[in-house]
Amino acid sequence: MNAEILCIGTEILLGDIVNTNGAFLARQLAQLGIDIYHQSVVGDNADRLRDALRLALSRADMVITTGGLGPTYDDITKKTVADYFGVGMVTDEASMRRIKEFEARINRTVKSNELQAAVPEGSTVFFNEVGFAPGLALEKEGKTVIMLPGPPNEMRPMFLNKVVAYLRRGSTDTILSRTVHIFGMGESQVEETLRDIMTSCVNPTVAPYAKFGEVQVRISAKAPDEEAAMKMIEPVLERIRERLGDLIYGIDVGSMHNAVVMALSEKGLTLAAAESCTGGKLSAAITDIPGASKVFIGGVCAYSDAVKRSVLGVSARTLKKYGAVSEQTASEMAKGIRRIAGADIGISITGIAGPDGGTAEKPVGTVCISVDSGGYGETKRFMLDRGYGEVRETVRHMSVLNALSMILKAAKANKPL
Amino acid sequence: MNAEILCIGTEILLGDIVNTNGAFLARQLAQLGIDIYHQSVVGDNADRLRDALRLALSRADMVITTGGLGPTYDDITKKTVADYFGVGMVTDEASMRRIKEFEARINRTVKSNELQAAVPEGSTVFFNEVGFAPGLALEKEGKTVIMLPGPPNEMRPMFLNKVVAYLRRGSTDTILSRTVHIFGMGESQVEETLRDIMTSCVNPTVAPYAKFGEVQVRISAKAPDEEAAMKMIEPVLERIRERLGDLIYGIDVGSMHNAVVMALSEKGLTLAAAESCTGGKLSAAITDIPGASKVFIGGVCAYSDAVKRSVLGVSARTLKKYGAVSEQTASEMAKGIRRIAGADIGISITGIAGPDGGTAEKPVGTVCISVDSGGYGETKRFMLDRGYGEVRETVRHMSVLNALSMILKAAKANKPL
Repeated sequence: MNAEILCIGTEILLGDIVNTNGAFLARQLAQLGIDIYHQSVVGDNADRLRDALRLALSRADMVITTGGLGPTYDDITKKTVADYFGVGMVTDEASMRRIKEFEARINRTVKSNELQAAVPEGSTVFFNEVGFAPGLALEKEGKTVIMLPGPPNEMRPMFLNKVVAYLRRGSTDTILSRTVHIFGMGESQVEETLRDIMTSCVNPTVAPYAKFGEVQVRISAKAPDEEAAMKMIEPVLERIRERLGDLIYGIDVGSMHNAVVMALSEKGLTLAAAESCTGGKLSAAITDIPGASKVFIGGVCAYSDAVKRSVLGVSARTLKKYGAVSEQTASEMAKGIRRIAGADIGISITGIAGPDGGTAEKPVGTVCISVDSGGYGETKRFMLDRGYGEVRETVRHMSVLNALSMILKAAKANKPL
Repeated sequence: MNAEILCIGTEILLGDIVNTNGAFLARQLAQLGIDIYHQSVVGDNADRLRDALRLALSRADMVITTGGLGPTYDDITKKTVADYFGVGMVTDEASMRRIKEFEARINRTVKSNELQAAVPEGSTVFFNEVGFAPGLALEKEGKTVIMLPGPPNEMRPMFLNKVVAYLRRGSTDTILSRTVHIFGMGESQVEETLRDIMTSCVNPTVAPYAKFGEVQVRISAKAPDEEAAMKMIEPVLERIRERLGDLIYGIDVGSMHNAVVMALSEKGLTLAAAESCTGGKLSAAITDIPGASKVFIGGVCAYSDAVKRSVLGVSARTLKKYGAVSEQTASEMAKGIRRIAGADIGISITGIAGPDGGTAEKPVGTVCISVDSGGYGETKRFMLDRGYGEVRETVRHMSVLNALSMILKAAKANKPL
């Protein structure tokens, strides 16, 4: 089974809104084992929509549309699809009831709203629990068109609660994916290291993709059930583990900041952060995770030397002798924040994010990071300007990733409570 | 002139990343007066890419591709386009030099990297200042294909700095845009307020777009020179100012955190931040701006009550009587951080970001923000859960925006030094 995604709406076509529906549907369909080879966007134009529909149905078994089901004159999806299939329009009673109830509540009739209850004859109707426009499926001669509303908050629950069940009628296969998270090696090097595995594996498939500063490798298997899929994935995962070893910081952990919160939670450890050049980005990343408050006590963004001294207790002598960006200052910052916050682990970052502020001895991109947990400590100097990219953004982002990686190591080195 | 956008990459096709390039390019092309009727996405598959290219070139004068220019085996764009136009590949010397310099610096040769310097014969080359893969334009029989790299941080500056000039060859008109930044009113309300202006203006055009939590209105004029374009924009800007007044926080200021750094710099004021539920996001946003160190002294991420008390000096009595999320605690946090950092302005945020932690009295989304500058102070309570969207992300993001807005107000209320 293969499908195409067709997003309808001039506001998407012209870039006034970013097409998040395409990505959502593509992921969901991939999970259901439905292949996607094309996604398209057309505006609210009946001729071009009809052409796009014809083309998509010539290439795929199924077309999923989003948008154009609303109450205004430029919402043309239902009528265009009905014309294409040669069927008329009828009223969906459940949707009409919903609209009438709303009108009674606001004590006003909105004629255009009622248009949303009109559906092509013979459609399967997906009731809209959030908005008024129902979703629809129409089948003919082995081809299916599924029409979904454009607003993501209506489309997503409708897809998950109604369309998935509709699509799985009769299907028995499951698709399962596992994601290997890698830090400390670039995408092309990961690919070189795993090329033979990637090219020889068909089911499961193995595919890398780069995120800013890290690489993920996804292993996806299609099998009759989850257990069978897991069994197919395991030996491939093992081969990847053998090659990449410690560069793998987690499997299915979502992100490095999530991995850190998970590791600290498991060990019952608490963390506090002292940041200079990252200015709160590390704390912000960690506290993005719900439940971070159980492991993260707080942080100090010591942007000025005065705060490094007065709040964190870095000695004036250290600052004078070695400078604010030095292993010595980093180490005193980590110890200081650990002490004042009463945390198990203290982490610190101090560096030169640029674009200005570099010197010959300490160029932009020089960053010192220190982690301290009493029994375990590590302080490292990095050069994080890669010579391309937005330097400030790169240095700050890579500082956060390296700090998270050092926290993970420290958490592993600590005995559980 | 009309164009199609063709985004290439299995990671977009399968929804692993959201296609923001499509929206960016569509907006930019619209501004240049180039019509867009279709956008498509295909994976890293040469056959389907060739078919998509053929179809797009049959419908449009120009196709703009993103992605598939990188160093790995699945980066197929250049070769596929060259084959389609029947030309061979040659080496672009400037790009190769750039790669060699990088290799010399890291003291290692990465064979696959050098592939990025290969370009179709006869191409116009757009040097990549951020990454290694150059952008390319190839023309034949009145049809043009422009190939841009996939990573947005490479594609965007290349488009703005190089491709725009390429597209405007021969044109003598200038296009000038000014952006009005609005905070405190939703997109549909802004649209209602400005509808008559938007629909009646043809040159300059007036178009709103929503960013997460704020709205921007862009006024674009086409004229023989910049001065003439400016003159055309001014009266429209004046009409918008009359309607929206204080809701406008700046013109062409980029972002609210940039506006804050600019305002503080102009007035010679310094800032320090005490954050609870935002966990460093406010500090991180401000320090994203180069030069923030001149105005931002530092911050405390007081995630736990202990840190609120010990570091910021919030009284135990206040915490007990009113709770950590209260106007009283927020006010003491703002005063505390201002004092310990020795800053002109102190800002604080304390709230319940969710998804857990809410109570009947203080539901998730309750946030108190306080700003204090000695002579001027303001403390406000907000309800920032909009009832849809990812609640934690929404509450944290809207907290930062509201805090920035309050800092701007405080900066304006302060006399310059």
